[in-house]
Amino acid sequence: MISSEYTRELCARDAQTKILMLVIDGLGGLPHPDSGRSELETANLPNLDRLAAAGSCGLISPLGGGFTPGSGPAHLALFGYDPWKSEIGRGALSALGLGVDFRPGDVASRLNFCTVDSAGNVTDRRAGRIPTEKGRALCDLLSAVDIPGVEVSVAAEMEYRAGVVFRGEGLSDGVGDSDPQGTGIPPRPLVAHGPESQRMVEVANEFLAQTREILADQSPANMVLMRGFGRYPELAQFDDVYGLRALGIAGYPMYRGVAGAVGMDTVEVNWDMDSECALYEERFADYDFVYMHVKKTDSAGEDGDFDRKVTLLEEVDSYVPRLLAQKPDVVVVTGDHSTPSIMRSHSWHPVPTLIHSAFSLADGAQHFSERGCQLGSLGVMPSSALMSYALAHAQRLDKFGA
Amino acid sequence: MISSEYTRELCARDAQTKILMLVIDGLGGLPHPDSGRSELETANLPNLDRLAAAGSCGLISPLGGGFTPGSGPAHLALFGYDPWKSEIGRGALSALGLGVDFRPGDVASRLNFCTVDSAGNVTDRRAGRIPTEKGRALCDLLSAVDIPGVEVSVAAEMEYRAGVVFRGEGLSDGVGDSDPQGTGIPPRPLVAHGPESQRMVEVANEFLAQTREILADQSPANMVLMRGFGRYPELAQFDDVYGLRALGIAGYPMYRGVAGAVGMDTVEVNWDMDSECALYEERFADYDFVYMHVKKTDSAGEDGDFDRKVTLLEEVDSYVPRLLAQKPDVVVVTGDHSTPSIMRSHSWHPVPTLIHSAFSLADGAQHFSERGCQLGSLGVMPSSALMSYALAHAQRLDKFGA
Repeated sequence: MISSEYTRELCARDAQTKILMLVIDGLGGLPHPDSGRSELETANLPNLDRLAAAGSCGLISPLGGGFTPGSGPAHLALFGYDPWKSEIGRGALSALGLGVDFRPGDVASRLNFCTVDSAGNVTDRRAGRIPTEKGRALCDLLSAVDIPGVEVSVAAEMEYRAGVVFRGEGLSDGVGDSDPQGTGIPPRPLVAHGPESQRMVEVANEFLAQTREILADQSPANMVLMRGFGRYPELAQFDDVYGLRALGIAGYPMYRGVAGAVGMDTVEVNWDMDSECALYEERFADYDFVYMHVKKTDSAGEDGDFDRKVTLLEEVDSYVPRLLAQKPDVVVVTGDHSTPSIMRSHSWHPVPTLIHSAFSLADGAQHFSERGCQLGSLGVMPSSALMSYALAHAQRLDKFGA
Repeated sequence: MISSEYTRELCARDAQTKILMLVIDGLGGLPHPDSGRSELETANLPNLDRLAAAGSCGLISPLGGGFTPGSGPAHLALFGYDPWKSEIGRGALSALGLGVDFRPGDVASRLNFCTVDSAGNVTDRRAGRIPTEKGRALCDLLSAVDIPGVEVSVAAEMEYRAGVVFRGEGLSDGVGDSDPQGTGIPPRPLVAHGPESQRMVEVANEFLAQTREILADQSPANMVLMRGFGRYPELAQFDDVYGLRALGIAGYPMYRGVAGAVGMDTVEVNWDMDSECALYEERFADYDFVYMHVKKTDSAGEDGDFDRKVTLLEEVDSYVPRLLAQKPDVVVVTGDHSTPSIMRSHSWHPVPTLIHSAFSLADGAQHFSERGCQLGSLGVMPSSALMSYALAHAQRLDKFGA
């Protein structure tokens, strides 16, 4: 963590102020070739524009110039952790969000239900995107897996995605993926990155062998691919570092996972804005810090659907008055990373950010967008610096030195 | 020190140019709720605006985003030192500014004259803000303190404030304050942060016991509170690092202290602009670098007196022509930190900064203010980067590499 040495020491733990951090996944974009305007510049965002005009604006860079982050590092940076040093395996992130029992020493992996043919070649890496309900039923079947000396917990995520947690002696997460990243070829054999991971490979191979038998008669999901092995992450906890009782509101399990990993309370909730807002309204009084995550904007960007991303941004904007009605002292609106629709992927572009409080300078940004926020006073800064700004605006950081 | 590795090597020691760094304490502010304009934006500053329009502007952040500095770290950053690593105890800063004999190995502490009742509870932490003259007389009385094996020097600062320097074997500055930060309660017992500071606690307790007897019949100042123990700071010296013969002009002792600690010459002077300017005019020819400190703007901000801060800024502006009349090659105008009147305290907000020389780009800032300087070319940069800019504009940094 970048700031912890100082923040831990300087945090004003008796402060009564409340911080809302609204994270719009994949927020930043790029101009549409026809209009020359980005998704944010195209959307009609009266509420966010008003906050931007009255607040302090800037751009945040998750990993520094040119580096494109995954969701894990991007979120860790938002929460003030060094994203390069605090990496969490994707499997670990998933497991944290699934509500499975996952503890120090355990190793988790993501699972994709997939389709294999009789020769064992993968024909569909996502098994036709089976519905979440079907995924749950298949996970129930996999509870029959029995490996001596190892506890195995399987839980469904969204659609064809699931997670598995292994508990036992001598497990390690230095294992490559079995996902071949293509079709017409067999899954990759699991490879240990070092001798300390050999036992994990043996256990995972046994898991795969039993899974293949259990799912043999299923269709279209008759096998799983494993990817993103990760041990339980041991990160400094929010309450300890910042003195914040924190709630993570995220319908999508993986983001509950990263929130839980840094010590936030999490509650299972649907991933529409309405459900998340209802949870926010219900629990706001109990917390000093609320992280709220909006997933669908990122998915629209990854699908290359510029117009849908615009519509979703407008939907988020329409919920802003409900969020403000709880009167948080500090409102931070930002994204974990950019996902420009024209790129159909995460990108390195710095992310529009606003901070609104009684102590924010209305600094010239009139629009909450890439080019709007560039006119603000925060400049382009590392995402990991954002938490100390949020704490400062909440008057939760004491002065350093006399 | 951040920049020394390079600057020490690259400094052009035969340059004949002169740099003036005018530091307006607590310079940055925030908009008044009625007008929407900050103190700087409200003030009429024709001379500073002219310098800003012709020079290079930006904002400097003493400690990085969100962190609020004390005066010591903020000044060390201005002088190019790493403010996190070069912290000086406030007692040490005070002692340096008092003109007492203070050397490596000594430990200093700030003293507040206070009032205690017969039960020993503090009834006024500032003894009714006794005048400086009275403080001097009390310090003379305390010269009677006699501790075997330890030299004790007491000197008055402003009003109810004073400082003490202890010299002797085995002294250390890991000692908590006796100031209870409230009234109706006794002073805190001094606590050693580790066994190496036990001897210092014993010596300081003896000092407090004798002080109590000596001041018993005084009113209202019949006791002292101790805070900010600090050993003599050993910092790289200005002349050695930058090749600059430097003069620190500061009416307020603590700022002479930090100037002295980095190797500037200092001269006792009143803390009005007129006295400081007269000293500047008298000594300018003898130095390569002059640091001039204006204290009252910060005090107005801390008092929450927006209008007084505006008036004081206008007063500073009116002295700019006198400063320019000496024809410094480089003029830097900035602050150590922000002190927005609406916050009544130091803050983390970055500080307006201008650099004017024959080589500065007139870069778009038309006004010397928070939002004016945001339009300049320097961006938001660490305060500790400012010295290398000042040296560069003075053609005092050689090229790095062929």
